[in-house]
Amino acid sequence: MDMIDYITPFTSTVDLQTGIIGDAPLIVTRRLSDVRGLYADAQAEAALVSDNPLTYEVYYGYNSPEVEGQLGYCTTIIRPGEVGDEYFMTKGHYHAKADRAEVYYGLIGEGYLLLQTPEGKINIQEMRAGVVAYVPPHWGHRTINVGSENFVFLSVFPADAGYDYKTIAEHGFASIIVEREGRPTVAPNPRYQVK
Amino acid sequence: MDMIDYITPFTSTVDLQTGIIGDAPLIVTRRLSDVRGLYADAQAEAALVSDNPLTYEVYYGYNSPEVEGQLGYCTTIIRPGEVGDEYFMTKGHYHAKADRAEVYYGLIGEGYLLLQTPEGKINIQEMRAGVVAYVPPHWGHRTINVGSENFVFLSVFPADAGYDYKTIAEHGFASIIVEREGRPTVAPNPRYQVK
Repeated sequence: MDMIDYITPFTSTVDLQTGIIGDAPLIVTRRLSDVRGLYADAQAEAALVSDNPLTYEVYYGYNSPEVEGQLGYCTTIIRPGEVGDEYFMTKGHYHAKADRAEVYYGLIGEGYLLLQTPEGKINIQEMRAGVVAYVPPHWGHRTINVGSENFVFLSVFPADAGYDYKTIAEHGFASIIVEREGRPTVAPNPRYQVK
Repeated sequence: MDMIDYITPFTSTVDLQTGIIGDAPLIVTRRLSDVRGLYADAQAEAALVSDNPLTYEVYYGYNSPEVEGQLGYCTTIIRPGEVGDEYFMTKGHYHAKADRAEVYYGLIGEGYLLLQTPEGKINIQEMRAGVVAYVPPHWGHRTINVGSENFVFLSVFPADAGYDYKTIAEHGFASIIVEREGRPTVAPNPRYQVK
């Protein structure tokens, strides 16, 4: 047998009040200026540019090597807020290795998980603390804070999944989640480009 | 492109008081009679046989096909209790595909994660609510309830990881976790067989 280069087991601790992984080796923050063009209402987006709110953060608990068999994990903290009537959300992506799945576990607040096949078929799952959501292979996925507090969840994904942000950036999701009469509502995305 | 047989996204809900996945498609329960020979103190084990306590349960939220790229997930509920002075624990296993990792997320109670390389090198991680533990590739892993209430955690693992229970059944772990002066203590396993 070849010598195995063992990785030493370790733990991370998620702050249960905030969702922050205190010793996260990799942190991504997305202000509105980092996601220009993401929201359907360009005027509303432009009006918020000077304020440039923080919309979400991702705390990676493990800077995992992109190796088959290993896993990555992170917490995502999406702030409450809207651009026009569209709730704050992540950019969303497919996996570069499209057949890689992902598991989400809801920790704090209320969110929607918006999924889409490359052909534009939409699926929506509701998330809150204690809900495990399965992102099957091949589905693009975006998360949306539809509540009034932070929406926080833990993600676990194959470390070799990779990210395809380009397809979403070019085509968008076929649906958007907007506030109508105080409630989250699924609406057609006026800027969706059929692939 | 070939037609893709899409899996429909779904959620499971973990009961935050008990750790039970209400609609789990697969449930495994382990009474003492299901794990005969697991504990170091054979006399203490024999004395408990008629009582035959439930030591742990596993609720699989997804009966995932054993396919590369997909993930499985489950909650494990280990009851508080001891056989002799050794805390209730899972059988423990390596992955059949040894290079598959696993991620644990602590939900309720206090546990130890005991890990071992095939050469018998031991590593121990402490778990409680909010702690994410990384089981790296190639490490056998067992969980132990060292508290006075149920110890519950969520596991996410590659669906093609598979189980190698045999190696642990034949050789055991080099260490056991026992209660000494009211505290969990690491002790050598008198029944450990060097591989």
